[in-house]
Amino acid sequence: MLEKNVIAGFSKWPKSKKIEWLVETYASNSQEMTRDLKSFWHPGEELQRIIDGFSENTVSNYVLPYGIAPNFMIDGRNYAIPMVIEESSVVAAASSAAKFWADRGGFHTKVIDTRKVGQVHFFWKGDFNLLQTHQQELKNALTKQVASLTANMRKRGGGVLDLELLDLSLQEPNYYQLRVAFETCDSMGANFINSVLEAFAEGLQGFITQHPAFSGNTHEIDILMSILSNYTPECLVEAWVECPVEDLGVVCETMDGASFADRFAKAVRVAQIDPYRAVTHNKGIFNGIDAIVLATGNDFRAIEACGHAYAARDGQYRSLSKCEIVDGKFRFSLEIPLAVGTVGGLTVLHPLAKRTLEVLGNPSARELMSIIASVGLAQNFAAVRSLVTTGIQQGHMKLHLLNILNHLGANETETTAAQTFFEEKTVSHAAVTLFLEGWREAAQVSKGVVMAVKKE
Amino acid sequence: MLEKNVIAGFSKWPKSKKIEWLVETYASNSQEMTRDLKSFWHPGEELQRIIDGFSENTVSNYVLPYGIAPNFMIDGRNYAIPMVIEESSVVAAASSAAKFWADRGGFHTKVIDTRKVGQVHFFWKGDFNLLQTHQQELKNALTKQVASLTANMRKRGGGVLDLELLDLSLQEPNYYQLRVAFETCDSMGANFINSVLEAFAEGLQGFITQHPAFSGNTHEIDILMSILSNYTPECLVEAWVECPVEDLGVVCETMDGASFADRFAKAVRVAQIDPYRAVTHNKGIFNGIDAIVLATGNDFRAIEACGHAYAARDGQYRSLSKCEIVDGKFRFSLEIPLAVGTVGGLTVLHPLAKRTLEVLGNPSARELMSIIASVGLAQNFAAVRSLVTTGIQQGHMKLHLLNILNHLGANETETTAAQTFFEEKTVSHAAVTLFLEGWREAAQVSKGVVMAVKKE
Repeated sequence: MLEKNVIAGFSKWPKSKKIEWLVETYASNSQEMTRDLKSFWHPGEELQRIIDGFSENTVSNYVLPYGIAPNFMIDGRNYAIPMVIEESSVVAAASSAAKFWADRGGFHTKVIDTRKVGQVHFFWKGDFNLLQTHQQELKNALTKQVASLTANMRKRGGGVLDLELLDLSLQEPNYYQLRVAFETCDSMGANFINSVLEAFAEGLQGFITQHPAFSGNTHEIDILMSILSNYTPECLVEAWVECPVEDLGVVCETMDGASFADRFAKAVRVAQIDPYRAVTHNKGIFNGIDAIVLATGNDFRAIEACGHAYAARDGQYRSLSKCEIVDGKFRFSLEIPLAVGTVGGLTVLHPLAKRTLEVLGNPSARELMSIIASVGLAQNFAAVRSLVTTGIQQGHMKLHLLNILNHLGANETETTAAQTFFEEKTVSHAAVTLFLEGWREAAQVSKGVVMAVKKE
Repeated sequence: MLEKNVIAGFSKWPKSKKIEWLVETYASNSQEMTRDLKSFWHPGEELQRIIDGFSENTVSNYVLPYGIAPNFMIDGRNYAIPMVIEESSVVAAASSAAKFWADRGGFHTKVIDTRKVGQVHFFWKGDFNLLQTHQQELKNALTKQVASLTANMRKRGGGVLDLELLDLSLQEPNYYQLRVAFETCDSMGANFINSVLEAFAEGLQGFITQHPAFSGNTHEIDILMSILSNYTPECLVEAWVECPVEDLGVVCETMDGASFADRFAKAVRVAQIDPYRAVTHNKGIFNGIDAIVLATGNDFRAIEACGHAYAARDGQYRSLSKCEIVDGKFRFSLEIPLAVGTVGGLTVLHPLAKRTLEVLGNPSARELMSIIASVGLAQNFAAVRSLVTTGIQQGHMKLHLLNILNHLGANETETTAAQTFFEEKTVSHAAVTLFLEGWREAAQVSKGVVMAVKKE
């Protein structure tokens, strides 16, 4: 019955035919859906073609708000951070935390390392010790194999840093790995790494099948796959803020600096102890991180996967940030792996990603790591601060109220009135609807009165 | 020197003033940046106001391609999946995997449970056993406390499912927790859960400070924070595909079904053994998952944080999918927690999120869990399939080539020519630039020849 929906050759259809099929098959009102999909196209044809080129089977553009969090002082330099996020209160929270810390020395950062990782996975029936004996010879052969591929990257100061053979045959029979470390400078380096790895795989195959040290079935090797790893625990940056505990006194009216610092530090420890809390705690960090990662055209899935795996590196999923109070000093820090690029890929192709990098002063990849980690830390600070003081709902509901009002088509006067009314009340969709109905009814009546007066 | 950038009251400025300040402070050419930022505004003022309402300090819209992956057969029903993703080849890969499995019974799913979680974290100096003695009484008091808050949700079949007291004082002195399980039906339920938790916290405080069973300092309680947990291991769905091994024979020209199945299963086992591979493997799953999560207006940070923590639940970060070959049958499956909503929040406010849900047949939250898990599994199948057959670069570079060509402003003829030229060659920015320069030079010369011929 639904077989009519199974189609062939969809990817080759022009965009207009794709939309036609989509709305005819799935829309309740095909005209309306067509209008909505087309309304998001960019007016510049050339630019729209570029956006369509990022992906496949495109029929529209999905928009996310592009906002600015000003007043970020990072390593002594002032930044306005472009953030792409659809969740209310994230940009407001980042801005507020940025301003708070700008008065207290700002964010400090340290790029610990920038190593990236790639792997060639292979199956082999020989003696690993024998292979290890020839490790240096293999390394030389492989390095030679990729010399032309890596020439440009080496000129920029990057390339292959190291390669090692791993014996994983105890976990899976005959399974070994070539693990390779890379430096890719200002590029994310995915294509570079994957191309080098595929060449390595070829070289490894040649080495094993042809080297006189091997014989019989140890001449046979089965390359399973060659691909970069998104787990880059050594592409690592630390960001921190610090100040005397008494300087925290202004955070909340009802507690002094010491009590605030104590509650804050406890909340971070709870996120270290309890995975249920840690996930939400780190999710807040990624609210900030993904927003700037997206705005710079970097790949947030890669950043997320790596960061969360890093949070679980000691065998339990824990907070990525930590908080110390030593000798009257409050120090809050975040250590996170961030493999990002500022050249190549979407960073130069997406018109707003390019603008983001310009607003950030066209940073190097290392500088961008510092900026992103600072935004993550700011976001975490803001979230934990509101959790341990006023509670999360107060601020969030204020912004949620705006969304509900927009949804109900409230005008400016109605919006202001509702904001005043809900200052101390619990926001819910039902309550706002009720309020708005009452307000409009009253307005209608008083309008009648005004008109009656005018008539006189 | 850079202090001029520190500003106050930014959030209250109108959008035009925000842009003015931004471009004057950070742009190399303020007119160009202003033009770019404004070029992405939606022409509908009302609609733009709604988008601006999602976040704060907005100056533009960030666009991501909205593409369609057709031919998804899920639980016997045919879907076209809207996907929002800026990475090339993701939508193409999903479409290809969908079609492959549509001929083999499609995707099967099972929603295992839909429980969500919230926590009240508190510090208390009393005897936990004493508190436990009064657990039922406390439960009753708290349930009464939130009766009006939960009335609507209970009508829809949801509400508070369970609450338990946890003793965590061994990990952190005096630290206890109220852990609450929720059912939020078709809504993501964040606001509902947080509101209930804050009311629970108030109720708990009242109970401890007033109950005659406690005395002295055991009457004192310090509520640290109350908030939902994004870790929802019991909001879980499984998706799988299966077919006889011989039906896989068509995947790759150079291997039969059995060899393909063997290589595929090995690749999945490698992702279970090695965290470096697991992160990339799961990242591929989230390429698909985030694309549809975004398209439906759900929160991908929450989904990512929960999924990756779940991948590390046994103490090592591992693959979320698994592959079995039993009695000649290939079975590939994904078990993943997915707390999503199909009512409320952005799902109804974002015009394209609404359209996404319409295209998906306005699914319930449970149906959406099934759809999302299937897309994640399809993505994973496509990625692992190309890794263990042709290698990832071949397909990826074809699409990457298009991006480079767009970047270099290639026209249609040039694009076609370049695609033919690079069919069997390694794509790099430098190589494509060289090709295009040569092509254009030759075109220029031959144009000269044509003109010379015409003159005769």
